[in-house]
Amino acid sequence: MLGAIEAGGTKFVCAVSDEQINIVDTVKFATTTPAETLQKVIAFFKRYPVTAIGIGSFGPIGVKAGQADFGHILNTPKLAWQNFDFLGVLKAQLQVPCYWTTDVNIAAYGELQAGAAQGLSNVVYLTIGTGIGAGVIVAKKFYYGLSHTEVGHVLLQQQPSDHFSGSCPYHQGCAEGLASGPAIEQRCHKKAAQIPADNPLWQLEADYLAQLCHNITLMFVPERIIFGGGVMHQKQLFPLIRKQLTAKMNHYVSLPPLDQYIVPVGLGDQAGIIGGLYLAKKLVNAE
Amino acid sequence: MLGAIEAGGTKFVCAVSDEQINIVDTVKFATTTPAETLQKVIAFFKRYPVTAIGIGSFGPIGVKAGQADFGHILNTPKLAWQNFDFLGVLKAQLQVPCYWTTDVNIAAYGELQAGAAQGLSNVVYLTIGTGIGAGVIVAKKFYYGLSHTEVGHVLLQQQPSDHFSGSCPYHQGCAEGLASGPAIEQRCHKKAAQIPADNPLWQLEADYLAQLCHNITLMFVPERIIFGGGVMHQKQLFPLIRKQLTAKMNHYVSLPPLDQYIVPVGLGDQAGIIGGLYLAKKLVNAE
Ligand SMILES: Nc1ncnc2c1ncn2[C@@H]1O[C@H](COP(=O)(O)OP(=O)(O)O)[C@@H](O)[C@H]1O
Ligand SMILES: Nc1ncnc2c1ncn2[C@@H]1O[C@H](COP(=O)(O)OP(=O)(O)O)[C@@H](O)[C@H]1O
Ligand SMILES: [Zn+2]
Ligand SMILES: [Zn+2]
Repeated sequence: MLGAIEAGGTKFVCAVSDEQINIVDTVKFATTTPAETLQKVIAFFKRYPVTAIGIGSFGPIGVKAGQADFGHILNTPKLAWQNFDFLGVLKAQLQVPCYWTTDVNIAAYGELQAGAAQGLSNVVYLTIGTGIGAGVIVAKKFYYGLSHTEVGHVLLQQQPSDHFSGSCPYHQGCAEGLASGPAIEQRCHKKAAQIPADNPLWQLEADYLAQLCHNITLMFVPERIIFGGGVMHQKQLFPLIRKQLTAKMNHYVSLPPLDQYIVPVGLGDQAGIIGGLYLAKKLVNAE
Repeated sequence: MLGAIEAGGTKFVCAVSDEQINIVDTVKFATTTPAETLQKVIAFFKRYPVTAIGIGSFGPIGVKAGQADFGHILNTPKLAWQNFDFLGVLKAQLQVPCYWTTDVNIAAYGELQAGAAQGLSNVVYLTIGTGIGAGVIVAKKFYYGLSHTEVGHVLLQQQPSDHFSGSCPYHQGCAEGLASGPAIEQRCHKKAAQIPADNPLWQLEADYLAQLCHNITLMFVPERIIFGGGVMHQKQLFPLIRKQLTAKMNHYVSLPPLDQYIVPVGLGDQAGIIGGLYLAKKLVNAE
């Protein structure tokens, strides 16, 4: 059997499947301390004969095999998790091969294998939720430079009409600070889900997300940008983003047809777990 | 012998060297029509027994081997060059193996082999000149997505004190439109080289270049960013960029020591040609 862990900053999801990625069991629990959380993870997997586990973790994390911080969570604001050797603890307890990458990367991989990026080689998966993050796949592999990307914190042009000070404690005018779920909610003083679809807030949101797409297009040059995360339940954002991206790019580079370029996640909330299972399968097949 | 071509939008440079990259002869001429320009290129190389040529061209260009537009110049504003089969014409005339990539990529490769990026694997070479462009090397290879990057046109936050409308005909507030040589000269109505080092213009310029570094750092996560091009003759920019990048990043990610992270080009104006020669050498060795 195959295993997957989607290790988020607020909740963990674990799943096991057969070799055809049919999910057999799933468990969810809140992210508390590393000891308590990992104990639940380990208890879950000990009940199944898993041969490999694909893990996507909140970050920043060490992703370079062979480096001392590989498999660790690094300088996260969640202090109890700082420098925690996630992969080391898990492998010691479960004694199975594990694939280790970011939470957004496993979702991107799920989309590549079974979602909205099937058949492609270069895709960016963006989550617009509590934070903004990107899983980047280039030539069918995860993109890493010296480490994984932090696309959510690129700087955007704040609209003159938008006087919100931003929700990112680090940056003025970064994408996460202007366009994440908490940014919307702090700006509007209400739940994002309760803001009507025709509220001008969504024009502003689409402007920021179109800027993010503009910059991603010019830097990574993907074949497709896939949007997931809670905020993207607002489906009216998709045509708005496409329109504003077209205006911003102004024919400087030719974009693929926009309804195939800016698309919603194909696997919904399952993208991460399914990606993790496919990564586990890849590990088993490589042996 | 080895050959190299740095095909710029305003001038071409061709060179030949021995197998140890000692340059034996160089020629420079203005970029006119494709026919006239290529004739001069071909006449130059026909005088030497070259076994391979490394070419870096202005763009956008087709860089994906096997695609119909590989080796072509694409939709450039220089109309005579649009859709010109640069590589095809050259190979037909000279009958030697040619390595084909962008002008900024060959400069990045020169820096990797013999300049300020020796020993590294992930570097971004930025030219700040008539335009802004980036050569991106990841795991010692040129970065391509669906095509090459166009980093010069990412959007920046325009300073409230800066009322310049931008020099890019496509975008409002892109890096090239705010921070290229022509942008400086249109804003200040004088030659950039004549603006004193203590003029506040250079603070503004450093702010924009620091924003570009911020975004490049979070997206590509390089080990080093190397700056070349005419504008970077203003050496006072380097400490200003480092300081402003530190302030903008605000410890969100840990940067390498800044005097090793933001550095001037090691090979000066020779980076492109030397990179082209190394690429020719690589082709010869691969045979
Ligand atoms: N229907 C909705 N419309 C707009 N925003 C939503 C909706 N549902 C959730 N959100 C926002 O998405 C954020 C949570 O994102 P989500 O992707 O579900 O979780 P996380 O990013 O923590 O994994 C919250 O800030 C919330 O405001
Ligand atoms: N010493 C200098 N100080 C500031 N700017 C300069 C200097 N020399 C050249 N430039 C600017 O650099 C630009 C030319 O860039 P350069 O890299 O030399 O050529 P290109 O980009 O066309 O290959 C011009 O716009 C010019 O204003
Ligand atoms: Zn931020
Ligand atoms: Zn532009």
